[in-house]
Amino acid sequence: MDISSLAPGVQHFLGQAAYCELGEFESLARAVATAPNLAVKEGLSAAAGRALSKHHGLITEIRRRGHEPATEMAPFVAGLDEFRQKTSGANWHELLLSCYLAGGLLDDFFIRLSDGLPRDIGPRVAQLLGEDSGTDVLVHELQTAIENDVALGSRLAMWGRRLVGDTLLVARSAMPAADPGTDRGDGAEARIEPVFTELIAAHTRRMDGLGLTA
Amino acid sequence: MDISSLAPGVQHFLGQAAYCELGEFESLARAVATAPNLAVKEGLSAAAGRALSKHHGLITEIRRRGHEPATEMAPFVAGLDEFRQKTSGANWHELLLSCYLAGGLLDDFFIRLSDGLPRDIGPRVAQLLGEDSGTDVLVHELQTAIENDVALGSRLAMWGRRLVGDTLLVARSAMPAADPGTDRGDGAEARIEPVFTELIAAHTRRMDGLGLTA
Repeated sequence: MDISSLAPGVQHFLGQAAYCELGEFESLARAVATAPNLAVKEGLSAAAGRALSKHHGLITEIRRRGHEPATEMAPFVAGLDEFRQKTSGANWHELLLSCYLAGGLLDDFFIRLSDGLPRDIGPRVAQLLGEDSGTDVLVHELQTAIENDVALGSRLAMWGRRLVGDTLLVARSAMPAADPGTDRGDGAEARIEPVFTELIAAHTRRMDGLGLTA
Repeated sequence: MDISSLAPGVQHFLGQAAYCELGEFESLARAVATAPNLAVKEGLSAAAGRALSKHHGLITEIRRRGHEPATEMAPFVAGLDEFRQKTSGANWHELLLSCYLAGGLLDDFFIRLSDGLPRDIGPRVAQLLGEDSGTDVLVHELQTAIENDVALGSRLAMWGRRLVGDTLLVARSAMPAADPGTDRGDGAEARIEPVFTELIAAHTRRMDGLGLTA
């Protein structure tokens, strides 16, 4: 059982994944700007650079195929901007948690989905998205804050649970063929379910690693 | 006549230049977040990536010498944050102009100053800072806006004239030996003046290129 048969066309995939990484970059850049100290700012700037470099890698693939990045990303702007806005958090720690959890889940998801892309691009994209995200600094900051503040920990646990729902909706929108109204929609649920279960399990491990209950 | 004899110690230079590039990155990242369309956002994200990569190149040099980036940058935070805040502009076009003019002037300046660094590092730093900044997109956006809006053009011309003063003060603060109270301060003015004249000439060319009167 896998979702590769539900992968969208290459253009759709690249445009959506590229705009996703740009959004991740923007969120991390905001976290850089509001970081409480220089060491953390420095670490976050490296993570922002990683997201940006994934974004530019995808842009390069779009150009290589003779298309305009802005045109390819355009269909995903409204939905992803709304997602980004809803998940931007009420404070710096919530923003950090969003970057870590949503960024991680979407990278995992797009890597799985890339199995369904043509062989001249799928593996290259999977490798690009699988590169280290430099998020150790986010984990360390969140762990420390959660250890030192029980109330913050429970607010972040709630925030993490809310994030996963919104993030899975983005993942779902990346599989237009899974729409029940389409030809391939039949049986799509059965193929999607185990993959989503796996994505949620990885999400839960991230939450556990921070000391949060998923 | 040159300013190489006024170059600060390597640590001072690297810390200040690194934090300068981080600030340039943060300003460009803000411009990305508020870009009016996707093509511009995309172009600006590349420019932000260039500033970030210069920053990380300098950080690598700091680490290579066995020092902590955060410690080395710390002395420059207050001054440069104030500079960044004063030059952030009242709107997107002013922010863009700041990124282009201040970023360009400071890169030019630090390249000149790097002549005074030891030979195992000066040329490498000069090469790093001299890399393409990806600012074509800023120039294009500003040119177009200025051509289409005379009033905006005169406000930006004023903003550009104000920027140069603040930016030259940052450059000056990078040469502690030029302080009249120090040993090497004698005759420093005579060495600094031609270099500043040159920096201002390059600034004026950038203004001209945009259609602004310096």
